[in-house]
Formats: sequence, structure tokens, C-alpha cells
Amino acid sequence: MNAADPALLIDSTARAARAAATSLARAPGPAKDAALRAAAAAIRDQSAEILSANAADLAAATGLSDSFTDRLTLNPARVEAMAKGLEEIAALPDPVGRVLAEWTRPNGLAIRRVAQPLGVIGMIFESRPNVTADAGGLCLKAGSAVILRGGSESANSARAIAACLRDGLREAGLPEDAIQLAPTQDRAFVGAMLGAAGLIDLIIPRGGKGLVTRVMREARVPVLAHAEGLCHSFVHRAADPEMARRVVANAKMRRTGICGATETLLVDAPVAESLLPLLVADLAALGCGFKADAGARAICPELPAATEEDFATEWLDAMLSIAVVDGVEGALAHIRRFGSEHTEAIITEDAAAAEQFLEGLDSAVGLWNASTQFCDGGEFGFGAEIGIATGRMHARGPVGLEQLCTYRYRVTGNGQIRP
Amino acid sequence: MNAADPALLIDSTARAARAAATSLARAPGPAKDAALRAAAAAIRDQSAEILSANAADLAAATGLSDSFTDRLTLNPARVEAMAKGLEEIAALPDPVGRVLAEWTRPNGLAIRRVAQPLGVIGMIFESRPNVTADAGGLCLKAGSAVILRGGSESANSARAIAACLRDGLREAGLPEDAIQLAPTQDRAFVGAMLGAAGLIDLIIPRGGKGLVTRVMREARVPVLAHAEGLCHSFVHRAADPEMARRVVANAKMRRTGICGATETLLVDAPVAESLLPLLVADLAALGCGFKADAGARAICPELPAATEEDFATEWLDAMLSIAVVDGVEGALAHIRRFGSEHTEAIITEDAAAAEQFLEGLDSAVGLWNASTQFCDGGEFGFGAEIGIATGRMHARGPVGLEQLCTYRYRVTGNGQIRP
Repeated sequence: MNAADPALLIDSTARAARAAATSLARAPGPAKDAALRAAAAAIRDQSAEILSANAADLAAATGLSDSFTDRLTLNPARVEAMAKGLEEIAALPDPVGRVLAEWTRPNGLAIRRVAQPLGVIGMIFESRPNVTADAGGLCLKAGSAVILRGGSESANSARAIAACLRDGLREAGLPEDAIQLAPTQDRAFVGAMLGAAGLIDLIIPRGGKGLVTRVMREARVPVLAHAEGLCHSFVHRAADPEMARRVVANAKMRRTGICGATETLLVDAPVAESLLPLLVADLAALGCGFKADAGARAICPELPAATEEDFATEWLDAMLSIAVVDGVEGALAHIRRFGSEHTEAIITEDAAAAEQFLEGLDSAVGLWNASTQFCDGGEFGFGAEIGIATGRMHARGPVGLEQLCTYRYRVTGNGQIRP
Repeated sequence: MNAADPALLIDSTARAARAAATSLARAPGPAKDAALRAAAAAIRDQSAEILSANAADLAAATGLSDSFTDRLTLNPARVEAMAKGLEEIAALPDPVGRVLAEWTRPNGLAIRRVAQPLGVIGMIFESRPNVTADAGGLCLKAGSAVILRGGSESANSARAIAACLRDGLREAGLPEDAIQLAPTQDRAFVGAMLGAAGLIDLIIPRGGKGLVTRVMREARVPVLAHAEGLCHSFVHRAADPEMARRVVANAKMRRTGICGATETLLVDAPVAESLLPLLVADLAALGCGFKADAGARAICPELPAATEEDFATEWLDAMLSIAVVDGVEGALAHIRRFGSEHTEAIITEDAAAAEQFLEGLDSAVGLWNASTQFCDGGEFGFGAEIGIATGRMHARGPVGLEQLCTYRYRVTGNGQIRP
């Protein structure tokens, strides 16, 4: 292994990425799409190599949890899904060069705001090898170079997949260095990426709260991410009971491990007695456990008591915190105290209550009569997403191709001077 | 003076700002406009107090340069300009709540992207007391709370002006703590602001390169700023000579101290011999000095020789670096090497050359046949600006009310669950 100083390594890696980005930013859409399709073909052609690299990763990975091993494992279906994912990205419209706004000033200057690639993106993720293909493909389509730093457990898999992406770039006549793997698995390289202000324009971390929190804390480079998705579903007094049961069961139990899964159920006091037992029975039948506040336990005494800590916990599992609250203001107060500004939903037939709830939220996404699990780039129609952001700057909610762009101004005059 | 720990002080200041921001974010536009007009009235009513506070600042400020003293000085006209500025902000449309995009998904979910205030903004600036009124007014209109930390030399003036802004908020029934001065002039408080991730959502520095660079280097909080405006004007071989003379003279000499002033003139080789002497004569007549490369000195041998360092220097003064370059690609290569991604202009009658130049730039603003001095929020039609940004994230170019907002999603369903 190369034992070079991480600061020097990031410098050479990022400079090569910058040079590639300058060229990729101006590549025509069809060239980028050709690169994506060629990369998909390379993944299919080299699936044996990818699977054997993955087998080497799995052989080296001992003492890992079942869920970790599952995330790390590739099989022919997952390899095919990566290839298909790249072709789907190729089929999306080019986000670069879109005219975001245009207007003409009284002095005749014509001003146009045009979407432009971000430049060089650093992607820091954990063990899922397919992130290499997804993130590499999205950044390519968005015209930005990317430096991919995945978990060391999946290093062989990532190398095999990245080689296919670079094959695709080469075949399309685009610079290979637009997609680079971190040149070392040295953990200090992650620190060097986070400190590479001016070399890297944006860091996107994908992984558990520990990874994302570290990145947010240490980064000198702008970060788009969410550290947690502590999402709430609020069943208002004017909810349709059947809709509430259907939506809450989906919001909690469809998939429990995704960031848009509901972690806390808030039930409006006037309907708690009638609705809470039904909601609990539905969820229990699906295998969900509970932590309930005093108000909920007054109605369902069999529920275990919740601590404050429970309401601040993103379960990512078949577990639900429950509180009985007083109306929209009660729900908002709870969400402001414990939420993570990710996604919250209200179930109600009362449009004024829904308005009050949605206007009162600071969260990236607020839903009325729909499952919190809809917080997803694909479900929003973005075609694909690279992550979800809960910060205030640049982009919030699902981050798709449009959100991976910045803009610049083109101003056309005929000799105007400023008075 | 309060000798409290800056970390505790920023915590209490920012928490008060957050509470105020939560309320201000939902304030109706007319209430915010009433606060701005009441603040303008208070500034007029209390102009004697403001001027006497400013006199105290000036009396304490010894050994300062003339230009520094000029920036620090208020007079009745400048006080009136502050009041008028607030009224102009009141007359602008409310940037909050604008529907930025909306669409409906095949499953019936109606998705709306809505402009929302950023939250809590930290403004760090130098000696100009009017920044207190301008920045306070813009943040108020944008629905965000602001913590203003101006230079210690203008502390009395800032306090008197901020009192008027808070009077305006109170009269309009809005929370005074939406506009706060830093509670101490202790320099460690600036460091605490820069480290206040989670408490402050955005830092905007206004001042010299030293201040802005420090803020960019140290901040743990997102920053919108430009460290320098090393702007270029490129006179292409197909330029209209008279237009080139008029535009270049304006771009360099209209005001030399603003960030959009041209610092380097690039002249296309085929027209250098005919045009450069005219351009130099025009600028010399306006009092400009020069630093010229070998190509320019071959034509105008009387010009002093430029070093590499000169081409990397933002003069902010009546001084111009000059290089002769070979065509659009030569100009772009020079700009990529020395520029600051702020603002560049091409003067040409050749539309294809203009297209090639504008597409080749990574700068926030590119102009064709117009003066670089148009890079300004007012000139762009934003009504007012809080600064210019040259980063890649969130906003680039002039930062007005729209750019001071973030967004969130409102999703309306009728019981959809995610398959």
C-alpha cells in the first residue's frame, strides 16, 4: 500500500478530479449518457469479476452482523440492478444547462441563471458496494467529478465496480478521472477529504448516524446530509380512522430501516381513546413494539413506558414511540422538541388543521394524508437520489440531479456601462 | 463589560434568535413591512442620538486611515439613506412562501416546493455602521433572525441603529430578538459564532479579504461570501473598438474599490496592436496605473512590467494588470489560473466567440458586451443585496432576498401508502 501523506494524496486525487470536472462540465448530454450505458454494459460483462471481488471482501469480513453482511453481499440480481440503475440515470434529462430563470433589465441587459455542475464531489459511505455505481452514475450525469470513499470491508467490490464506470467514461471519450476511488483505505484520508476546502466542493456522507455526525462535525467542506430521520406521524382529531390505520401502518412498518420511516406516533387527545387501540393492534400484528407516554398508557396500559430518551431515538427498527398530544400545536411542540427536521405527516380531513400543521413545520418535508415513507427521490419523481438533506443550505429533502447542480449567470448586453 | 464565556454567550444569544426566528418565519408580509417602516421612522426620529453615538465612535478612533474614517462616519444624509433603504426593502415582494415548483405524481401526491426562511443568520462585518441597518432589514424581510457583529470601532453607532430596528419590530408586534447585536466586542465571540453549528444556520461576512478569509477558514457554519473579486475584461479580436474603450474604462474606473471592478484586462493578440494603445490612453487619462506582460509591453513599452503576483492581485484601486492572450481559449486559460470565479466579461461582436467564452467560464457571473461593474444585486433587479457569493453551494453571484431563503416541501395526498 501507498503510505503517502493523506494531505498529498487528496491533493493529487482532487486536482485530477478538478481537471476532469472542468471537461465533464462541458460534455454534451449524449456523451454522458453513452458513458453511463457503456458502464452498465461493462458491469454486465464483468459481473464474474465483480462477484469474485465481492467474495474476497466477504471472506475477509469476519465477525460482522447479519445485516452488515447482507448489505455487503452482491449476487447476480444485485449486479444486474446496478447496471439497470445506470441505464435509468442515462434516460433522465440532463440537469446541466437548464435555464432556471431569465429576465431583462430596463437598461437592456438580458440576465439568465443557468444550471451548472458543482465541480468535485466527495462521497463517503459505508459497506454497500452498489453505492459506488449509484453515486458514480449520478455525479457523472450531473457533470461533476466524484471521489468515492467506501468502507474498507467492500474495497475489492468497489474497485471492480469503479473500473467498469471508468471503462464507460473512456469508451465515451470522457475523462476517466471524473470517477475515482480513494487511493487508500487509510482512515486519515477521510479526514483529509473533510479538510479539502477549495479542492472538494461538496461532501455527501451516506451511512449511519455515527459516520454522518462525524462528517458534519469535522468537515471544512460543505456537506449535504441528514444525520437522522426522526420522523413523526400525527393522527389529528379529524382523521379518517381507516386512512389513519392504513397510513400509520405503512409509515412505520413498510420498511423500518429507512430514514423516512415513522419513529414516533402522535395521537390527538380527543381521538386517542377510540383510535389508539386500533393503531396499536394493527402495528402489533405486524410485529411492532412500543414505548408510550402516560397519556397513551392511560388508554393502553399494556404498553411499556417511554422515557424522554425514547422520543429522541431514531429506532430504524420495529419499534414505535407514542405520545398523546393536544391538537396541532401540541403535535408541533413535540416535533420541535424531538424532531430532526426530516419528514412529518398529519392525517386529517380538516384542511385548516393540515394547513396549520404544514405551515408550523420547519422540516424538509411535510405530508398531509400520506405515508412518511414517500420522502424519497424516486417517489418525488427525481428519477434517482443520492441522499436526503435536512440542513438549511442549498438543498433540502431528496437530493437528485437538479440538487447536485449549482448555477451561474450569463448576462448579455450591447455595450452597457454602469452609471 | 460582561466577561462571560463566549460559548455561553453565543448559546443564549442564538437560542433567543432561534425562538424569534420561529415566530418571524410565520409573520405575514405586511407585519414585516410595518416593522421595516417603523424602523425607518425610528432612525429618522433618533437621528440625533445616532449621530452622537457615531461622534463618540469617531472620537475614540484614533490613528485610522482616511478611508477607514470615511467608512465609519455618519452624517444626516447617510442616516436618511439608511431609513430610505429600509423603506425600499419594505416595498419589495415577500420572498417567503413563494411556490418555487409544483407537480403531481402519478399516484396523486401533489408536491409543492415552498420558499422558507433560513433561520438564524450571523453577520460579521467591519466598520460601516449602515451595514447594521441594511443587513438587519434584509434578514427581517427574509424572515430570518440575525446576529450582527460589527467592528468594535463602530460599536456605539451600531447600538443606536440596532435599537431603532428593534423598536420597529416591537411596534409591529414582532419579536425584538429577531435582530440582535453581539453582546460583546470580545474577539472570541466571533470565533464562537463561527463554531456555532446548529445554533446559527449561515454566516455572511462583509469586509476585506482578511476578514472573509478568516471566516471561510474557521467557520463550522455554512458561509456565503466572496474572498475576492479578481474580475477580468477580455477584449476579443471581433470587439467593436469604441464599445471596448467605453466598457473597459467603466469596468476599471467607475469605482475601483468594489468587488466587481475589473482588475485585469485581457486583449486578444490580433487586435492588441491597434486597440491596446487606445485602451491604455483612455485609462491613463482617468488616472489608472498599469502592470503589463511582455506581449503588452511589446506594443506599449512604457508600461511597467507585471509579475505573476500582479495577475493574482485584486487591486481595488486605480491599477490594472494587462495581458495579451491568444483568443477565447487563451483568455479562459488565464482566467482559470488567476481568477476568483467572481465576474468576467467579453467584448466582441462575434456571437460564437461570446458563447465559447461564457460556456467556458466557471465564474458566478459572465457578461457579454457589458461592464463587470454590473455584478450587483440592485443592477440584477434584486432590489437589494446582502453580498456577493462565489462558492458553489446554495447561491452564487449577488445574494438578495430570494437567495436568503431555503425551501421545504409540502405534499398533499388522500391516504396514499408507499407500495
